[in-house]
Parts: sequence; C-alpha cells; structure tokens
Amino acid sequence: MAPAPDGTLAYRRAADYIAVALIFLRDNVLLREPLHPEHLKPRLLGHWGSCPGITMTYAALDTLVRERGTDVLLVTGTGHGAPANHANLWLEGTHAHYDPALARTEQGLTELARRYCAPDGFPSHLSPALPGTLHEGGELGYALATAFGAAFDAPGRLVACIVGDGEAETGPTAAAWHSVKHLDPVTGGAVLPILHLNGAKICSPTLFATMSDAELTDLFRGYGWDPVIVDMAAAPESERLTDAVLDAEAAITDLQRRAGSGEEVERPRWPMIVLRSLKGQGAPAEVGGRRIEGTFHSHQVPLPQVHDDPEEFAALEAWLRSYRPEELFDADGRPVAEVLRVCPSGERCIGRQPAGDGGQLRRPLDLPPVEPYAVEVKGGPGSATASPNEVLGKWLEEVFRRTEPTRDFRIVSPDELASNRLDGVLEATGRGYTWPVETYAEHLSPDGRVLEVLSEHNCQGWLQGYLLTGRHGIFPTYEAFASIVDSMLNQYAKWLKMAAEVPWRSPVSSLTYLLTSEGWRQEHNGYSHQGPGFINNLLTKRSSVTGVYLPPDANTLLVTMDQLLRDTGRINAVVSGKHPAAQWLSLAEARRHCAAGASVWRWASTYDGEDPELVLACAGGIPTVETLAAAELLAHDVPDVRIRVVNVVDLCVLAPPGRHPHGMPDEEFQELFGEHTPVLFDFHGYPSAVHHLLHSRPAPDRFQVRGYVEEGTTTTPYDLLADNGVSRHDLVIAALGLLRGRSGAAGDLAARYARHRDRLRAELRRTGEDPAEITEWRWGAGTGGPG
Amino acid sequence: MAPAPDGTLAYRRAADYIAVALIFLRDNVLLREPLHPEHLKPRLLGHWGSCPGITMTYAALDTLVRERGTDVLLVTGTGHGAPANHANLWLEGTHAHYDPALARTEQGLTELARRYCAPDGFPSHLSPALPGTLHEGGELGYALATAFGAAFDAPGRLVACIVGDGEAETGPTAAAWHSVKHLDPVTGGAVLPILHLNGAKICSPTLFATMSDAELTDLFRGYGWDPVIVDMAAAPESERLTDAVLDAEAAITDLQRRAGSGEEVERPRWPMIVLRSLKGQGAPAEVGGRRIEGTFHSHQVPLPQVHDDPEEFAALEAWLRSYRPEELFDADGRPVAEVLRVCPSGERCIGRQPAGDGGQLRRPLDLPPVEPYAVEVKGGPGSATASPNEVLGKWLEEVFRRTEPTRDFRIVSPDELASNRLDGVLEATGRGYTWPVETYAEHLSPDGRVLEVLSEHNCQGWLQGYLLTGRHGIFPTYEAFASIVDSMLNQYAKWLKMAAEVPWRSPVSSLTYLLTSEGWRQEHNGYSHQGPGFINNLLTKRSSVTGVYLPPDANTLLVTMDQLLRDTGRINAVVSGKHPAAQWLSLAEARRHCAAGASVWRWASTYDGEDPELVLACAGGIPTVETLAAAELLAHDVPDVRIRVVNVVDLCVLAPPGRHPHGMPDEEFQELFGEHTPVLFDFHGYPSAVHHLLHSRPAPDRFQVRGYVEEGTTTTPYDLLADNGVSRHDLVIAALGLLRGRSGAAGDLAARYARHRDRLRAELRRTGEDPAEITEWRWGAGTGGPG
Repeated sequence: MAPAPDGTLAYRRAADYIAVALIFLRDNVLLREPLHPEHLKPRLLGHWGSCPGITMTYAALDTLVRERGTDVLLVTGTGHGAPANHANLWLEGTHAHYDPALARTEQGLTELARRYCAPDGFPSHLSPALPGTLHEGGELGYALATAFGAAFDAPGRLVACIVGDGEAETGPTAAAWHSVKHLDPVTGGAVLPILHLNGAKICSPTLFATMSDAELTDLFRGYGWDPVIVDMAAAPESERLTDAVLDAEAAITDLQRRAGSGEEVERPRWPMIVLRSLKGQGAPAEVGGRRIEGTFHSHQVPLPQVHDDPEEFAALEAWLRSYRPEELFDADGRPVAEVLRVCPSGERCIGRQPAGDGGQLRRPLDLPPVEPYAVEVKGGPGSATASPNEVLGKWLEEVFRRTEPTRDFRIVSPDELASNRLDGVLEATGRGYTWPVETYAEHLSPDGRVLEVLSEHNCQGWLQGYLLTGRHGIFPTYEAFASIVDSMLNQYAKWLKMAAEVPWRSPVSSLTYLLTSEGWRQEHNGYSHQGPGFINNLLTKRSSVTGVYLPPDANTLLVTMDQLLRDTGRINAVVSGKHPAAQWLSLAEARRHCAAGASVWRWASTYDGEDPELVLACAGGIPTVETLAAAELLAHDVPDVRIRVVNVVDLCVLAPPGRHPHGMPDEEFQELFGEHTPVLFDFHGYPSAVHHLLHSRPAPDRFQVRGYVEEGTTTTPYDLLADNGVSRHDLVIAALGLLRGRSGAAGDLAARYARHRDRLRAELRRTGEDPAEITEWRWGAGTGGPG
Repeated sequence: MAPAPDGTLAYRRAADYIAVALIFLRDNVLLREPLHPEHLKPRLLGHWGSCPGITMTYAALDTLVRERGTDVLLVTGTGHGAPANHANLWLEGTHAHYDPALARTEQGLTELARRYCAPDGFPSHLSPALPGTLHEGGELGYALATAFGAAFDAPGRLVACIVGDGEAETGPTAAAWHSVKHLDPVTGGAVLPILHLNGAKICSPTLFATMSDAELTDLFRGYGWDPVIVDMAAAPESERLTDAVLDAEAAITDLQRRAGSGEEVERPRWPMIVLRSLKGQGAPAEVGGRRIEGTFHSHQVPLPQVHDDPEEFAALEAWLRSYRPEELFDADGRPVAEVLRVCPSGERCIGRQPAGDGGQLRRPLDLPPVEPYAVEVKGGPGSATASPNEVLGKWLEEVFRRTEPTRDFRIVSPDELASNRLDGVLEATGRGYTWPVETYAEHLSPDGRVLEVLSEHNCQGWLQGYLLTGRHGIFPTYEAFASIVDSMLNQYAKWLKMAAEVPWRSPVSSLTYLLTSEGWRQEHNGYSHQGPGFINNLLTKRSSVTGVYLPPDANTLLVTMDQLLRDTGRINAVVSGKHPAAQWLSLAEARRHCAAGASVWRWASTYDGEDPELVLACAGGIPTVETLAAAELLAHDVPDVRIRVVNVVDLCVLAPPGRHPHGMPDEEFQELFGEHTPVLFDFHGYPSAVHHLLHSRPAPDRFQVRGYVEEGTTTTPYDLLADNGVSRHDLVIAALGLLRGRSGAAGDLAARYARHRDRLRAELRRTGEDPAEITEWRWGAGTGGPG
C-alpha cells in the first residue's frame, strides 16, 4: 500500500533534520533540551545546499522500491551533499547494519554526528566508507557515466543517478548524456537520471538554472531522453517527485518489455527527471540581511558565524526546530513508525544493494589459456614477427566468447579498436549501439560488448561503473590521449585506496589501460599524438594501487594481460605496440621475465652479461629494439667491453621497496645494475618517470636515462628517435661516452656514429622513408652502423 | 557582385584536387601527364575524410568575406583535414605570402606537396606553421572553446569554427556549446560554429550522424543556438552552404545591432550551421568491393594499396582527373581566374587574419605597480599576517580597472573566484553572463570580464583562444582539479613549442595558472580535493615553455605574478594560498628572492647558515611554515648543529642547466645545498617532481624529499601534514635521523618528538581542532615542541 503523502513528508523532515544536525551538532542531537553553544561542533564542515534535493529523491526512490519491488542502486553526483546520504542511510538502518555503533538510537545518531567530518571519521563528501556508494562526487562530472557502467549487462537493475546542476556544466557530464545511445534495453538495466536544478553553484547561478523549461526540454530530447520537469520549489510538500519517479519506472519497464519481446524499439527513449528545488531548501530564508535559502549562501555551512553571532545561533535553533524533531523520534531516538514506513525493509534498502559493493558480486573472469595464442620463437630471439596487439586481440576474442553467458567483460575504447589492431574481438561481439545506423556500418549491434565513443571520459566512467559493480574490462587507448582522463584516474586511485581500508568492502577487478599506438610510432600523425605522460601521472598515485608494465613483445604482453585480468584493487597501465615487430621471448621465458619484473638478457649481452662495465637497460617495445641494435653494434665495434642488457617489464621494480610494493630489494637491484656500473637506460616515456623511481637507489646519478624529450613532428620513425636522442646510434654514442677512457671506446668511433646517423637522416629527408638499414634490421644479422 | 555559382564549384574542385594531390603525389602534381607510380609519394600520409567539408566551408566563408566585407577568423577543429587547409591557403595566396617557395605556380604546388608530411616539412595535422591557424586539432574537443576565446572582447570579429562530428562526441566540446551564454553581443565578437556531420569517425558512425534532424535541432536549440541544417550530401553542387553562411552573418549582425543599440536581447540566440556531407565526399564510390566515399574507409588515405594494387592506382588517377585539373590551372600552374575569383584579396584572406598570429596584436599589459599592495613586514619575518590571494586580488582589481578601455585582460575560473579569495576583482568587473539571472545573483553582467563556469575545459579553451589572439589572462583553480586539463596543457605546450620555431610568429602572453586552495588546506573537503600532480605533468613538457613557482608569501606572490603577466610564450603554474598566513619577506627581499629563484634564509638558519651540517629546504607556503617551525625547534634542541634554511620559489632552478633554462649552474646549486651535505626537502607536492629535477645533480641521494604521499581525508591541517610525514615534528625527527651520530641529535630526542606528535594527534581527535600549539605558533616566539 502506498504511504500517506504525509509519511514521505515526515521522512523528509527527519532526514533533513539529521543532515543539519550532522553539520552543526556534537551533542543534544535530537534537541531534547534548548540548544547551547557547547552542543555545537567546534569546526563546522559539510555542505547543506544539495541535501534537501538528495533526500527528496531518496524518499521518492524508497517509495518506488516499496511499491514496485524494484531494487534501486543510487549514484549521487552531488557527493558533497553527504550529510543527506548519511541521514538516509541511518534512517533506513543501513548504517546500523554495517556498524552497530551507528544504531537507530539517540546514541547511534550522536556517534554518527561526531564521526561526520571528524579525523578518522567519515569525510565530508561521499566515500567508499558509505554503504551502497559507488561514487565520491568531490570532483564533479563523472556520476552519470558511472551509472551507465553499473547498468550495462545488468538486466533488472535500475540505477538512479542524481546529477547536480553544477556538475552538469562539466564536459564529462555533457558528453555522458549521450550514453543512452549505447544502452541496450534487452541485455542491460536502466539509468534514471535526476538532474537536480537547485539553482546555484558555489557563488553563481548555474547555467542550467538559467535555462527555460523549453530549453531544458529541447536539450534533453535532443540528447535522446524523454524529460519531465518537476518543480519542488513551487510545491515543496507535494508528491510530484514521487509520482514522476513512479511514472519513469513504468516507462522504463514498458520500454524493456517491448524491446525484450522482440519489438523493434527505434531510438529507445528513456525517461529522465529535471528536479527544480531551492538551493538549501528549508534553510532560514534570511539571516542578518543575507538571503540564505535559495541562494549560494546555503551552499556550504549556511550559518558560518553561529559560534559568535547570537542571531545566527538563534536562527540555527529555529531552523532545527522547524523540522519538529520531537514528532520524528521516539524516546530512544528511534525514528517513529510514520518515518520508518517510508524505508524499504532490510536488504531492499538503497544502501544495501549488493552492486554497491561490487566486489562481493565479482566472479573471477573465465580466461582461456594463453598457450594456443603464444608466438613461437623457435629460431631464437628475433626469429619471429608479430603484432603484439593482434596476438592479444585473438586471445581477447576468446575471452569474449567464453563470457557470452555471463556478459561480465567489456572493452571501452575511443573509436580506436581497429586502429589499435584489437579488432579481432569484433569476431566475437559487436560495438554496442542502439540508435539506427547506416547499412554499411560494420560490427554495430545493441548488445555488443565493445563500447566505442570519442569520449575518453565516457570510456573511463563506464568502465569504472562496470568494475565497481563486480565486472571486468580493459581500456585500450592511444597513449597520448590517455591523459584526457588523468583527473578521473586521480580520483579513482583515491577511491581504490580508501575502499581497501573499508573492512566490509570486497576488492573489485583492477582497471587496466592498454596504452597503445604509442608515441614512437605516431611519426605519421605527428606531435600531438606523441605523449607518454600518463605513466608519470599514474606513478604519483598511491603505490599500493598502481602498476606500470612495458612488455617488449607479444608473449610478454599475453602473460601480463593474463595476470592483470585476474588482478584486483589496482589501476594498471600496459604499454603495447600494434605494429608487426620482432619477438624475443618464448612463452616460458616470458613467464619467467614477467615474474621477475626485470632480468638480464644474457643472449643480448657480451660475456654472458657477467661482470659488466656498462649496463644497457631498456623498457618498452621500441626502446628494446633500439637497445638490442645498439648492443649488437657495440659488440661488433668494441668487442672487448663487457656489456649487459637488462630489460624491464614491470617498471615499478625500479623503485626502492619502501616506495612501491613491487620495488626490488637493493640486493636484487644490484644484481641487475651493479653498484657503480654506468647504466644507459632507454625508456619508453619521459625520463622523469625513471628519475623518480631511481631516487635513493645507490648512486642513481650513474644512470643516464633517455626517453621522450618532447621533440616531434610528422616524420619517419628513425628520425623521431634521433630527434629525441634515442636512436640506436645515439645510444651507441652515449654508451661510448660512458665508457670514455675504456680501450676501443674512442671518441673517433663516436664521431663515426654521429656522422652515420646524420647521413641516415639526410637520406630519409631525400626519400621520405627510413633507410633499409633501419627497416630491415634483424637481430643477429650483424647489419647496420657505420661498418 | 556575387560570383556565379560555378565559380564556387570550380574553386572547390581545385581545392579538393590539391588536397588529394598533397596526400598522394610528389611529382606531376597537376597531372600534366599520365600518372606513373614514380609520381606517388613512397609513404602515404594524411586524412582525406574531412577535407571536402572543410573546403565547402572555406569557399562559403570566402564569399562572406567578399560580399559582406566581414573579416573571418577560422578555427578548424578537424585539424587532421590539414590537406584542405593547405589547399585553401595555397589557392588564396597566403602560403606564397609567407613563403615565396610556395608560390601559386606548378613549382610552388610541387613544393607544397613535397613538404606535406615530409620530415622538416609540414606535419600531417594543422600546426602553428600554417598561417591563420589557432588550433592544431590533433587531440579532439577544444576548437569551439578556443573560438569563443578568440571572440571575447573582439567586437567586429567573426570566428567561424568547424567542429567535426567525432570531436562533437567529446566532453569538452559538449560543454563548450554552452559558451554562448557567456558571449556579450556588445563587447564581443561572434562565433559561427559549423558542425560538420560527415557521418563517421575512424571506424564507426558518429553519434551525431545517427541523430535525426529533429534531435539535432532540439539539442542545439536547447543549448541556446538557432541551428540550421544544410545537407550538402544531397546537393553537392548547390550553394546551400554559402546561403546559410550569409544568412547566419545577417542574423549575427542584426543581433549585434539590436544589442548595441541598447535593446534588451534576452537569451541572445546566435545562428549555427549543421553541415551534412558524405565522409570523404568526392572520393571513389567503391574500389575492390569496398565502399569508400561516405564510409569510414575514406577517413585517412582512401587508397592505401595504390603502390601495389593496379585497381587502386587506376582509381586514384580517375579520382584526380574527376576534378578536371586542366580546367583549373593555367600553363604555369596558376589557378585560373574562375577559381581565384572566389578568394578575397590580399589581407582579407582567411589565412591572413592578424588574430591568427595574435602575438603581433599583443600589447604589453598595463600593470599597476605592486608597491602599494605589498604587505609591510617591518617587525621582521613573520611579523605580519595576510592572505596572499587577497593581496593579489586587490592588485588584480586595479589591473581590471586599468584595462577597462582596452579590455585585454580576463580571469577564467571554475566558479572558485570567491572561494579562492580573489573576489576583490569583482569590485572592478563582473562575471560575464548573458542569460537572465535571478535578482539575488551577485556580480553578473553581460560585459563582465571574469568568466566562471564549472568546466575547467571551457576555462582553458577560452583562455587559450584569448591569449592566442593577443590578449592576457590568468586561470586560478583549485590545485587538485587543474589536472582536469592536463591533456589540454599537453597540447598547448606542444603548440607553444612549435610556434616558437615558426619564424613569422610573434610570441603570445604566457598562460598562467594560479593553483590555489591547495591540498594541504583541503583538510575540510577531504581526499578528493588533495592532489598536487599538475606540477608533475607540467614538468614533463618541453622545458623552454614551462615554469613552476611556489611563492611562500604575499609579497613573493605579487612579484611573481607581476613578472609572469609580462612573460610570453610559456605555461606557468603558481601555487598560492588563500588563508591568512605569516608573511616572511619585505617587497625588496621578495624581489631579490624571486630573482634568484632560491636563496638561503639566513635569519632562519643557525650560524647564519654558514657551512651547514644540514640543509632544510622548502618550497611552497605550507612547507615553508613547517620547515621554519622545525628549524626553530632544532635551533632550540640541538643548538650546536649548523643548520641552513633554503627556500625555493622557482622550482626549476633545481634542474641541471641542460634540463631546464632556469636550472642553476652546479656551482650556484652547491652554494645553496653543498656537495655532500644532507638535505631534508619539504616539498609542496609529490616528491617525485623534485626527485626528477635533482637527478644528475651531485649526489642526489643525499636529498631526502618529503611531500604529499596520497594520505588524506577530512581532518585537521596538522593531522593531514602528519599523515604524510611532513608536520614540523616529522621534519625534526627526519632531520635528527639525517644528523645521526652528531652530538645532541640522539635517538631519544627523536622519540620525544614522535611521542609529542602522537599526543597532539590524540588531542585533536578529542577536540576536532588543531591544538593551540599549532594554530597559534608564531616564528620567533619559541613555542611548541616537546619542550
């Protein structure tokens, strides 16, 4: 039976009251006695502005859960309105379920108030510590895409998403509205966005609040939604929002039913709600001549001078009492029946949805063995040629086939799957798209599990939502453009770090980026496509949640991906190449190499790599080729010099153990690099990444690190390497420099190499192509160099 | 007189022909003889897909320039369609104007074809090397905001902006459509967007191409535009696009006239054009059973096997001849009159717009002297208190007043101006906004020169466009959220680096970020607001275009900003605080300190800082306070130890000179830090930034760098510092560790400090506030510590 309208009203009064109490009070939280200054928290923290709207929505969704038996997962974009989420979680008993100290009693509420914004307590914004929460909301823009990620491949799931009108100004949110074109009503769940127009951001009206109803309707219809505008500012005590939510659910169910029954639903038009309310609705209208309710002055703490200003103090007490708490809580502080009646029972509560702690839903991915996909290198290192990404794509194709029944694996990509030569997977699944497409379009279907859109923000948000609800996936992208989601990565890394500290959370699958079409082979697209900085950003994050891998060939890539698709709780970046390239290691060797993270490649070293006078280290596919070519030239030209080649696949082994969990003990580090031996390190990315990792290793200044130094344009691959000082010939010259004084390693040899390099560059300027010496080089053939 | 329609058609044929030729040919560029394989370039690079649409637009805009006398600046979002831009620049004579080798002759065209995508030639995408170009377009999403930046405060300027339908999927573009709400029709110019729906991105249909006309119209009307859809696929030879452009200009002029005459134009509705065309329109319809024109197969090089496949080779020649080049070029290779008639003359050409090389328009900013704004510290270091941002805000207020006549200075900010305590400037100007707002909204007006929107992408794009057209501005932002534009910074840094290499380009004003509300004082907002990684990203860029400054107080901030607002050609980040804090240096001292970049603070050192046994280094406002407090404690507890305090304001002085132009010579570096002296470095951000800069300085491992290590939540400032090991007490403990074995610096003293720190943290957990020992600490008062 539907509750009486005043049931919802009482519930909202209780939740709003609690949210105010959490911001202001540490004692007398139910206002059993007159408010005294010592009941106030000494520091007032938290944001009131969006709380009433969150609670309006929560109450309406509760009615939906109760009346229709629909389970609802809630993503709150306005995460700074956390006091409201806490209030609702407390009222529905979810807080008590996870922590008996937060029981539905006066004592429990006091404890909640004291913990809110306290050191070691709950942070001011949403966080993984809140049950049912998928999204922190501190940095704006990512709620809607996250909600879609939670809905893909989850038939029967309804994901409600509160989008703030501040957040709605961001680019990522503006793009995320288009996600509706990718959501299959048959194999997926539904997303119900509630755009919360409360009118103001921190200090100004929001863009959306200044838009007319006609503009709002046009905009969202244009995006593909069926919007309805609900004005709760005009009728604050009405059930309009509840009605709109119930109507929306009916429309969703109808759409799903039609699509599920095989009816062709062209341009499936999902409902959405635009909720107009006053900013901080319910706050004092005006205090000290300053308008509060309905203005940006209610954004954060609406009465900031309450400790010192008697007028504000009186206004606070009047505000709290305006909710009539004495009617809402019984003698023990338990919410009265009229309030509780709104809450769904037990596991049906919004905060108790299993998808809100996706780790508990997660099942390990059904991975095929890598053996049948491995490249044979029977003729020894360099004897086979393969595109690492193509090899990986074949294996991933089988991953898609195996997961057809479970539908728990996806690839997100900014329209680069084919360009990155991973399109083997399209033999097993399509690109998910529901809007009608031209007949010549290839590999699109509503139920496809590849998501391609030219928005890295959508890709990232979708994948986060998908992983956080217990599924698996990878994000292949042009390396240079991964930085578009630097900031999303920052926030997700924080989420993972915090989630690992929450005792009841189960770990979710790691988020793995495949950084490909790497800069060294973007010589054709040019300078804008050359940027390896994503690794640097990842390395600044908490080391317990990060990994960086640079497999030098297809087999190491397979082994790495097989490992990372079993991994949990981390963000991993894997750099891989798409072009056919020489293969170095057998599968067994690749396994050993990956397990070690870095090893000596004896076959590429002189004197078996023992007791070296110089270490040539490399990380990344292209640097490995150049380093091997340089090693071969040096072996020929200065055969008496003892040179060791070291390849690094797990970059973080370079860090001192205290700085990263993968960090090698100093003894192992010295086994690879010696203690005083000069090391020439050819790194795939910016040298700064390696500079950082090496700091406080013994004598780090003996490492000469080379990499991308922001030289680039449209040119040939060799020219791009030489521009950055990392062609094989530059490496030989640098090595000779490090060996200065060593017999044979004379300056005139270096000069010959410099002249040779310059000749090659002059030649490629004439022909527009790299010389055969470069393009046809094969390990062991003894070609190349000034001879 | 308007040209005959076939005039435009001939022009388009010529431009399309040239674009194909640039991609494929190195000889016989006018097809005077039958095509032979040796006429082909050995490597085929470039993108054809968007070329025809760019040329359609260019030709229509040319008509506008000729017929209406309107000067048009063009921003091409589809920068990979560069062959079309080159073709148009060559046809109109702009290429020849800047480089006589690119004359409008067969020889000139051959030279252009040979340079396109050649090493040392023109890159495959747009670049600063192309006259009239503001935008590279390799990374998608930023054209529209850039166009708005070029239009602000430029009455009479019409900025046409081609937005690709791939680009339109990005978040930044999706948000940028809202920019229309910020453009004042009186004090600004106009932006005319042409959304180019050619139907496909790399491998799939675009979202926009699958939208119905009704959806497109709804969407853009919702955003606030007045869209018209022009289908040039249906009528490829029509003048529909030209007509639409002329209509749009009339509507723009009318709107500007009405607004300029004082009429109140509510929700000024600017025209925009949706241009439907076939992808690669004009390419062969089908070759080898593969459909090319109108599909993604025409995205890049449409006939990739032309060297080896006779059918493709024949198709190429037929394609080229389909434009009938013999009708378009005279015997010298000069375009015939019918073609040339379309081009505006001389300086009116689209490629010759002065704003396309904004440095030549730039006038130095009229800056007020900083003296009247400086904080007096007559009582010595620490004797005065001020909010650095407030002080800066007052000075910037005067900058706004002085530039009222020239309107060449703006602040862009994601709604954080007041929060960052820079709102002093609102006394001199308002927030620019044209949509109607509620009466209680504060400081909004159409002609305001502060731009606030909750989209960092818009802020960045607008400012880039503004600076690139010769103006000035700054971008204050919460430090943690600056990373949202990491990738835009990457691309802009590349632009600046390349632009500096173009001989005819004049330098534009530097882009200066004010990174504020820094993480150390985001203890209230919590973990999501704590992230100093923007600095790390900036440091990976080309060092000739970057600077990082950490002024420790208000006077150093003033001196720094005064310097950077005169700076050109760079991207600078300045970290500054908003909270009232102790002031250390007089204005004269601040000038000396800033000039040096880093100096010994003798007054804070023991033994006058001479011959130190330990250096305490610091960079950043909060680290400076903690370091000074630690220095004071050490001076008290181990008075016999010689301790030097070094403050770093220009972070890049730490880099070896070869790595950054600000890098100190090794001798100066050693004068500050010694050669073997242990250094405890308290850094504002991630230690990795400093680790990188120090690499290959003498004995870098003696530097123990501390900073933010991704510990954080909502807590007190001291607790946040202690969590990351950088509270004053942690610094003392670390210093004692570095002094191990030194008299007085015994382990039990360190243990006392650890106990003291733990006591303070227990105390703040009880009270919710930092202890008075921390909040009331003043330099020189001798308080704090275990006593």
